[in-house]
Amino acid sequence: AAIERALDGGDDRERLAGRHILVTAGPTHEPIDPVRYIANRSSGRQGYAIAGALARMGARVTLVSGPVSLPVPAGVDRIEVETAREMANAVAAALPADVAVMVAAVADWHVEEAAHKIKKGDGAPSLSLVENPDILQMLGNSPKRPKLLIGFAAETQEVIAHATEKRARKNADWIVANDVSGDVMGGDANSVHIVTETGVESWDRLDKHEVARRLAERIADAL
Amino acid sequence: AAIERALDGGDDRERLAGRHILVTAGPTHEPIDPVRYIANRSSGRQGYAIAGALARMGARVTLVSGPVSLPVPAGVDRIEVETAREMANAVAAALPADVAVMVAAVADWHVEEAAHKIKKGDGAPSLSLVENPDILQMLGNSPKRPKLLIGFAAETQEVIAHATEKRARKNADWIVANDVSGDVMGGDANSVHIVTETGVESWDRLDKHEVARRLAERIADAL
Repeated sequence: AAIERALDGGDDRERLAGRHILVTAGPTHEPIDPVRYIANRSSGRQGYAIAGALARMGARVTLVSGPVSLPVPAGVDRIEVETAREMANAVAAALPADVAVMVAAVADWHVEEAAHKIKKGDGAPSLSLVENPDILQMLGNSPKRPKLLIGFAAETQEVIAHATEKRARKNADWIVANDVSGDVMGGDANSVHIVTETGVESWDRLDKHEVARRLAERIADAL
Repeated sequence: AAIERALDGGDDRERLAGRHILVTAGPTHEPIDPVRYIANRSSGRQGYAIAGALARMGARVTLVSGPVSLPVPAGVDRIEVETAREMANAVAAALPADVAVMVAAVADWHVEEAAHKIKKGDGAPSLSLVENPDILQMLGNSPKRPKLLIGFAAETQEVIAHATEKRARKNADWIVANDVSGDVMGGDANSVHIVTETGVESWDRLDKHEVARRLAERIADAL
């Protein structure tokens, strides 16, 4: 049906009309002190591409974004955050949503923030990490759980096994898993596996915009 | 003399001709695992502005830069690095130099890198930090010590006292100290103090390009 519509000349623009879709993207930054922080290599490009693709299909899109240097896709409402805790709050505030696509590479841990810059003379410190809120799990168990809840998983080993386990544990509908063991995050392309209740669908390595377009089509099909 | 030359119409372009000046800029990124790293809020803008200002005065400029998203200033030879250890190696390889201006916000510590992405199931880890090479001190004590060695210090408290102590400890000629307690790194302007053997010179809050231009003039005056 998607192919017919495409050949037809795109009433795709209306397929998600009236839907509110929440997308998270980018890394989070977790402060160590006023000048240092823990980051990760997420560029935000995959999440921004998905937000843009959903908006082009008519959805109202709220994009909760960590610190990235990317323009806001047309028709997307962006909320900028820095830490995982800020992202969790922004996601909760954006509900209800018909669909949530959690693409952000949320830091698993944060550091107890020092009021002053830690100085070398203080001796080599050991950073004790404290768990961050698990935003995907929070949504999975929320009374406001979106009808379709999609998580992402960046893995370096046993990609599909980890994603399958994650889907169940987080009460998500789909996990989009990608292998970051070779090419790390931040590149232009993605090779993903969609892990659902019924099985695994593996896509060849694709440009991130093409991954976004296909995922948006698949979301529209599922609603 | 500088004013006369400026009014004169700028043979400033030749004041540093024949000099090799080494500048470092930007943050360093210290990997925690294949996807996470420790960063800092340095944008690289002050160091890039200084490299550009020195090149405009005729110096041959080698800019050793951590990860930033800034264009290379005209006439500057940039060497890109990620970690403090890479920066130390690149600085050593760039010697000899007549002047070194160490603007980079080099991480004081690195983390023993994990081969795989640390997973939440592994429990909340504690990151043991190991001291990085001290690039300024290394240059200060090097047989190839540049004739004029300038360090930067971003401080949140007792700015001048810390900078004065740092100047002596690192065997640097000048420390350019700035107070990052209010406005953190990454902004457009800087309010700096130049700590030398003979005293402290405080400049009003200036655009980073103006700080760069004045510092380049002061370097030319000192040679």
